[in-house]
This record gives sequence, C-alpha cells and structure tokens, in this order.
Amino acid sequence: MESSLPTHAKDNPNVSAEGAPSKNALKKAQKEAEKAAKKAAAKKADEEKRVAQQAQASEDTAKDKYGDLPQDEVKITHLKKLGEEYVDKEVTVISRIHNTRSQSAKLAFLMLRQQGKTIQAVVAANSEAVSRQMVKWSVSLNVNSFVRVTGIVKKPDPPVASASISNLELQVTKIYLVARAAEQLPMQVKDAERPPPAKEEEGQVDAEGAPIVTLKTRLDNRVIDLQTECNQAIFTISSAVEGLFAEYLRKAGSRQFNTPKILGAATEGGSGVFEVKNYFGKSGFLAQSPQLYKQMLIAADCESVFEVGPVFRAENSNTHRHLCEFTGLDFEMVFDHHYHEVLGFAEQLIVFIVHELQARYKDEIAVVQKYFPRAGDFRIKDGKALRLKYFDGIKILRDAGVDTTEQDNFVTDLTTAQEKRLGQLIREKYDTDFYVLDEFPMCVRPFYTKVHPTDPNLSNSYDFFMRGEEIMSGAQRINDAAELEAAMRSKGLDPNSEGFQDYVNAFRQGCRPHAGGGLGLNRIVMFFLGLDNVRQATPFPRDPQRLRP
Amino acid sequence: MESSLPTHAKDNPNVSAEGAPSKNALKKAQKEAEKAAKKAAAKKADEEKRVAQQAQASEDTAKDKYGDLPQDEVKITHLKKLGEEYVDKEVTVISRIHNTRSQSAKLAFLMLRQQGKTIQAVVAANSEAVSRQMVKWSVSLNVNSFVRVTGIVKKPDPPVASASISNLELQVTKIYLVARAAEQLPMQVKDAERPPPAKEEEGQVDAEGAPIVTLKTRLDNRVIDLQTECNQAIFTISSAVEGLFAEYLRKAGSRQFNTPKILGAATEGGSGVFEVKNYFGKSGFLAQSPQLYKQMLIAADCESVFEVGPVFRAENSNTHRHLCEFTGLDFEMVFDHHYHEVLGFAEQLIVFIVHELQARYKDEIAVVQKYFPRAGDFRIKDGKALRLKYFDGIKILRDAGVDTTEQDNFVTDLTTAQEKRLGQLIREKYDTDFYVLDEFPMCVRPFYTKVHPTDPNLSNSYDFFMRGEEIMSGAQRINDAAELEAAMRSKGLDPNSEGFQDYVNAFRQGCRPHAGGGLGLNRIVMFFLGLDNVRQATPFPRDPQRLRP
Repeated sequence: MESSLPTHAKDNPNVSAEGAPSKNALKKAQKEAEKAAKKAAAKKADEEKRVAQQAQASEDTAKDKYGDLPQDEVKITHLKKLGEEYVDKEVTVISRIHNTRSQSAKLAFLMLRQQGKTIQAVVAANSEAVSRQMVKWSVSLNVNSFVRVTGIVKKPDPPVASASISNLELQVTKIYLVARAAEQLPMQVKDAERPPPAKEEEGQVDAEGAPIVTLKTRLDNRVIDLQTECNQAIFTISSAVEGLFAEYLRKAGSRQFNTPKILGAATEGGSGVFEVKNYFGKSGFLAQSPQLYKQMLIAADCESVFEVGPVFRAENSNTHRHLCEFTGLDFEMVFDHHYHEVLGFAEQLIVFIVHELQARYKDEIAVVQKYFPRAGDFRIKDGKALRLKYFDGIKILRDAGVDTTEQDNFVTDLTTAQEKRLGQLIREKYDTDFYVLDEFPMCVRPFYTKVHPTDPNLSNSYDFFMRGEEIMSGAQRINDAAELEAAMRSKGLDPNSEGFQDYVNAFRQGCRPHAGGGLGLNRIVMFFLGLDNVRQATPFPRDPQRLRP
Repeated sequence: MESSLPTHAKDNPNVSAEGAPSKNALKKAQKEAEKAAKKAAAKKADEEKRVAQQAQASEDTAKDKYGDLPQDEVKITHLKKLGEEYVDKEVTVISRIHNTRSQSAKLAFLMLRQQGKTIQAVVAANSEAVSRQMVKWSVSLNVNSFVRVTGIVKKPDPPVASASISNLELQVTKIYLVARAAEQLPMQVKDAERPPPAKEEEGQVDAEGAPIVTLKTRLDNRVIDLQTECNQAIFTISSAVEGLFAEYLRKAGSRQFNTPKILGAATEGGSGVFEVKNYFGKSGFLAQSPQLYKQMLIAADCESVFEVGPVFRAENSNTHRHLCEFTGLDFEMVFDHHYHEVLGFAEQLIVFIVHELQARYKDEIAVVQKYFPRAGDFRIKDGKALRLKYFDGIKILRDAGVDTTEQDNFVTDLTTAQEKRLGQLIREKYDTDFYVLDEFPMCVRPFYTKVHPTDPNLSNSYDFFMRGEEIMSGAQRINDAAELEAAMRSKGLDPNSEGFQDYVNAFRQGCRPHAGGGLGLNRIVMFFLGLDNVRQATPFPRDPQRLRP
C-alpha cells in the first residue's frame, strides 16, 4: 500500500538513502510500520487511560473538565466564525490538534485547526478550574486528533504569528477527545502546507530539516493533503465554479440533464475510449464527452441544455493539464440566426464566473495566493472577452517571430507552447487573461463541426483560453442528416455504424441550428488560480499512473 | 437498427399480425424502409423544388414570403411566451409542424409545436400577401419540420380545442423552412402523446385505429418521444429537482465535489460492479456510489459535501424502478452531537424540494397530470416529514394483517410489496406521502453503518420513502478505524484489501462523527409525479436490456 509508508524515509531502516527500496523491502517496511503503528496506538490508549485513571484517583480538581466526550449538547461555534466580537466570551469549538507544546507542568499551548484555519489555545493550571493533570492530558493527545474545546476568547498581545487567526486565542476551560488520530501518520498536514519541491524527488528537506513533500506523496495521502488551508480554499472555489456555471445557465432558462456514461459503441474515436468489460454480455464504452447526447437533446426540442458530469479519456497523456477522468461543464443551445449568439453567451458565462469568484471569494483567493502567487491577478480587461479570429491569433505569433508555417498551411492546430506564448503576447498587448479564438480551420475540428459559410477551409468553431491554455472547445454543429453523413464519410467514419445510427437519426426528423461548448472544471480552477498542475484542482485525480486513492 | 422500424406494424408486409417478425424479416423490412424513406425524401425534395420553381415562374404575388430561410435577423418569440397581450400584433416563431390540413387551394391549417406547446396557424390566400402557391407549399412540408413563421396573433372563436394554446392562433404572413424532417419517421410525436398501452405489446391500436406505442418503442425512438408535452414537462421538473438539491445544500454551506468514477478496486460488493477492461494495463471498476469518497472528504476536513453524478449498478434487476446507471444526489456532513441533526436536515431537504416544485412548477405538474393522474396530488402533511422507527412501521403493517414474521426475526428488510402497503397505510392514517423510517436493523445495512448506542441489533440508519417507495438510504457512519475494521471483518470483508486501504486509513488520522445519505434523482421525479416507470424520468435509460440510444 502506497499511502501508509512513512514520508520520513530516513526513519525507515529498509529504505537506503541511495536508491529506491525493493518491492519486498517496501512490503516488509509497510507491514512493520503497520504493526508498529498498531502497537503504538494500543500503548498510547493504555497510557491515556492510565493517566486519566491516575488523574481521577488523585485529587484532580478538574476531573470532569477533560477526557472522554460527555453527552451534553452545548452550542458549537465554527472557528471561521470567530471574530473580535467574541472577546471575553466563552465558546466551544470542535477542531483538530494541529500541534502541541508543553511549556511546563502547569502550562501548555495547543494549536487548534478547523478547515485549515488555526488558533492558539492555552491550557494553564492557574486555578482550580484547570488542573496539572488536565494540562498533562492535553499535551498527551496525538496531533490531528479531534477535540471539543471550551474556552474564553482573549486578545493576545502580541498576536500569535503562527496562527491564521492571530488576533485571538482561547483560554481553555474544558477539553474532550472527539476522535483520536494515530500517533504515526504517513504525512503531516504541516508538511503539506510548505510549498512543493521544485523537482518531484522524494527525501528533500528544507533549511530547517523539515521534509518537503512531492506532489506524488501529497496525492498518495490526499485525505491528509486536502486538510491544508490552501486546499480547503481551492475546493471552495472549485465548488463555486460548478455552482456559478449552473446558476448562469439556469438563469438563461437552460435545463440540466444527465446523459448516459456507458455507451453501446465507441464514437468519438476508438483509441481514447475506456471499454466496459461485460455489460450483460455486451461491450460497453465510457463516454468521452456528452457531445452526441446533448445534440440529441437539442434534436429532441430541449432548446438549451447543460450537463455537469464526468468525462473519460483513455489517453496516455502525462502532462500538467491532462486527466483520464475530469468534470465536464457542457452546454448546447439552439440559436435564432447566427452561432455568435451562442459564442457571446459563452463568453459572458466565463466573464460572469470570474467576476463572481473575485467578488464572492476574496478570502479564499487570498489564501491560495500565499502558495500560488498568481492566484489573485487574473484579469479580464473591461469585463469583456477578447475575441480574435484564429488566423489573427496566428498573425500575432508570427509578428512576434514564432514559426507558424504549419498553421499557415493547415497542417496542425496551435501547439501547447504556441498557445502559452500567444497568451503572454495577448496579456502584454491587450492586458487580459481571457481570450477566444474563432473560425478554426475545418481540418483540425471534429466531424460534427459546421463549415464556415463562405470559406470551406474554416469552420464556425471557437476555443476559449485562460492564461494561454485551452479551457473550452465549441462550435456550431451540423444539424442536417445528409450534411452530417457526408462530413462523417469525409473523415473516414461510417454514419451507419452502431455508435452513430441514433445520433444521425436524430437529425433526420428535423433539428434546429445549434451550437455549444464543453469546459473542463478542473482546468478553469487551475488556470484561474494559477496552479501548477490540474491534479491540484482535482480532489482524487485519475491519470495513466494513478487509480488510487 | 431498432429505431428505424416503422411503428405502424400493420403497414409492414413482413410483420404478421399474429407473431413477432423474424430477425431476417426485421432486417429486410428495415432496409426496405430505409430505402423507401430515402427515395421518398429525394422525391419530396424534388417536388418541393418543382413547386417552388413553378410558383416563382408563374405570377406569385407572395414569392418572397415563403421557401428557403432568408438571412434577415428578425426578432423571434417563443411560443410559451405568447399571451393575449399579443392579440393583433405580429410575431415570428420558430417551431415544428405538428400536422398540416389542407382545407382548399386557398386555405390550410398548420398545427405548430414548440417544446410540446401547440398553436394553430392559418395560411389563407385571401389577399395578395398570401398566394395559392404559398398555401400549397405550406401543406407540402413534412410533419416535424422546423419552420420560421411570421403572423398576426388572433383570438379564435371558438377556441382551437386541439391546440394547447387554444385561445390564440396565427394568421400567417410569412413561412420559411428552417430544417426539413424526413417524410417517414419511425414514430410520430402525436402517437407518443397518447397514453401507453396497459401491456407492453406492439401493434395495438386505439378505438380510432391510431397506434398505441409501447414504452419500448418510445425509448427506442427517444429523441422523438422526448418532444411530447408531457416529457418536456417531466424533464423541466427533473432539472429543477437537481437544481433545488444543490440550492439547498449550498445555502447550508455545503461544498460540491466530483469524486472519481473509475476505481482501482471493487469495494461495495463485487457482483454488482462493472469492470473497466484496461486502465493502462490495470483493471478498473465503476463506482457503485460515491460513499467511500464522500466519507474520505469528511475525513479530509470538508465537513459538509455533496455530489451529483452517475452511479453504476451491474445488477440484473428488470423492474419498474431499477436502472444500471442513474443520477445520484449524495450528501455527507459532520454533526455536533447526534446524527438526528443530519436526519432532520435531510428531511427538510425533501420538504424543500417538494414545496418549491409545487410552488414554482405548477404549469409543468398540470401538464404531467393530464397523462399521469397522480402527478398533482403529492402530499406532505403540515410540511413536515413523518418520522417513524423501523419497528413502528413494522407494527403498522402487522396491525393491518400483513405477515411480518421475517422482519420481526431480523431475517430480511421490508419487501417492495410491504413498502408499498406501508405507504398506503401511512397515507390513510397520517395523510402524507413522505415518511422516514429510522433505526433499521443492523443486519440489513452496509458495513460502514454505525450501530445503535444501546441496542446492538439496531443501527443509526434511516430510509426515506415517497408514495411507499424508497428514494434514499442513509445513516451515521463509523468514524473510528478500529471499529470499522471489526465491522468489515464481521461482514466477511478484508479491511487490508486494495479497495479498502485508503478508506480505512482515512479514519486512522482522526475523523469527526458524520452522517449522510444518497438520493436517486430519477426515483424522486418518478414518485413525486406518480409515473409508472423510472425510465420515464430518465432521458436515455440504461438497464440490462438497453444500451441504446
């Protein structure tokens, strides 16, 4: 098991400093670690019990003020709600122990943590209300355990620099154990709160000898990793993007649908598709996008639809921005006269999301910015998308000295490097991080794309970019069966094959002109916040190497 | 291909009235039908062209008022927006031709349809503005084609009984073709608008000889079927349920997550799981629920999470309420003192959804009620869930003479028949369609369920019922690793197996007590509206027999 290995390789006798451990050594180490952890946990529990009993046996003036959780139902306050209006008031919080420090037999400091926010708690045996036994018990608790703490809110002078709620602290009057953490954890939250190393190499330490954990280790121990202040903020923003997408679409009268993810045939290209082994004796395939189904819903008079759901790509792409499973934000809608009605709608969607994030989630963006400095600087000039034609984008690159011969000759689409460069040039020239390229060459777009009305080399299609990286692809779609069949044949696809019949038939019974697009939730979060890797914007990422946790 | 077969079996010489056609006959019939359809379409197009040319050749006073769509960008009005305030005003709509009727060379009636709503349009050659050629062209259009119609809104006397917008009609001044439908469709929307037959048998006709289409035929031709007034309303309500669920959770501070659907190991029982054939050389499995992952998010300090996403069940259950892929509405949250905090929250969630549906979607519910008479009568007494203990529910059954020996002796859970009977008894006794059973026997619940604090035979778990059928299962979950391992072993599961390690480890590092539940979107819609079958509440259902369209 990957995730139970202690991160501190130097503590483990089976792992040499020079090389990677063998599989057997890993297994052995793991078993021993588990055994040791169990033994330690049992010992710890015994000791805690002994201390508690001892405490109760001796004259403990505070014996009801700590230990096992009582059954009383006191009012609980969330750490994030605490403000100066609480000073000198009593509050009860349920939080983790971020760390403990024993100053003396009569004085201990606990750092409490809830959803990444930290506050200092002082356990001081300076009256009958708090006993020495209570102080001792408090510091005996394992880091990351959950406690219910009652205390008086005070204003420390000077502020507690190491706490995120630095202007307040708690004078503890009661402390009870809610859930115990094991003594030895594979990774500490405080380790995950330091910036990742420049290179993905295990075993690095910082100037103070503290381990620097790689992205791999963080993702192997994702349940602990997600507890950092930064990750709590990232996933608040991710949730918000999902909500804002739906909010915008619903306001426009669009309806949410959930189209099937198991399909009877591979459609959008067989190589990138996962196969379901045995669907009641038949082969099934995982949807690479809801494209065909959302168009079928348009053909079914739904007029404007959206979907939020998983998208599966069996592509062996091991990059910073590819996943084998991601959350697609898809929409599709009829238009009255021109596909630019839909394009404008989609541009305003992104403007809305960015604007609302910056208005409603200032605090979370500021937290992420401590770890990813670009988080706060996403810019949309004049609150409006910059829309360029594809070949105007190519011209900007060419004018800056980039070789665009292949693009000029319709050989390939923009490369990732060219996209990023274009993003930089556009930021310099237009002062914006969000732009759209319209009228892509027909040859680089999928078969269902509508050709440009006057130039057969071009198409009514567009890509959206944030900080120079693609977040959305979209287009007007072919809405006539005969035209669609011809387009499929010209791309070497058989419109009569099992995977396409239902789709093509949808257009035989009449379908209005329509357009749409598909956004990647994880990419929007990544590029908006300026993260390094799409995995940082994915709670439990799936890539060619990773199927756990 | 299933879906191209004509529904009118009597028209097809290869299908005998007595029995089902052979496979070969079906294939042949299908090929012939396709050939005929193609031929007819070509003929039709030729004829339309000829008529148009003829019209233009002769003295056509209205030759610019009909035919191919011009490039002008006139304002488009949606049919559902039309009201009496439009009388005597000119509007332009884009709608389908529901049917056509030629009264004379000078007068035709078109029924127009948009998203299930219908209105009569009159094409009358009574002035120079509308020519006989225009009347002829209008009735020559295939049913289901899209047209852009400009006309003056009038108030017909008497109202047009056959139109859903019966108080208005359009006096056509212009009509252009937007998208042509094939002449022969596998099913007509008007056929799908009649109630389904009592028995799933093909070839039935009603008193007037019109075909009664089975659910199978409807689902085979789902793109056409979804165009009915009733289906348009059902999926407006389905979209609303999804939105209201998210709205309620977000208001309560919960965050939306998307957990992976491809897993590295089968977890919640191997028999009901779909396998992904080749995940980069490894085996993958489709998630049977987000249960383990939403709990891992709770262990990762997320405190309150929800997810809307597909749930995959490889169960060979061919019933009115089982699907192999459905949309799960899942939530999970920590509580301060008692799991009833979460239970109460979930009860209020359902009350909120039902209340808002009844307040915001009166029109859609009324439409569904025309086809499913119970749609409008869903009742929650005093706007509050009725909460009973499981064994109090059993007692109600026993008191009514139902044999509950197996339940009394902890042998099995309630059967479907018992659930339905209990629903009837509760409606009679308590005047409500929504009730909750709490404290289920431990033996019928999954391993992660928290045992009742004082009775080891019971558990802190609950099911929700609408009209006597289950829509949700939920519980307090075990939040201690040692307790969880023991519970798994007692159910014959290995906590150290690959599929469980990450999950069990999540509790080793400390996790707060929490509870949650999982709702089925499709079932809520089905039971709320009193539909017959969960497939009617699913845009493209997946079951052991169906992987298309």
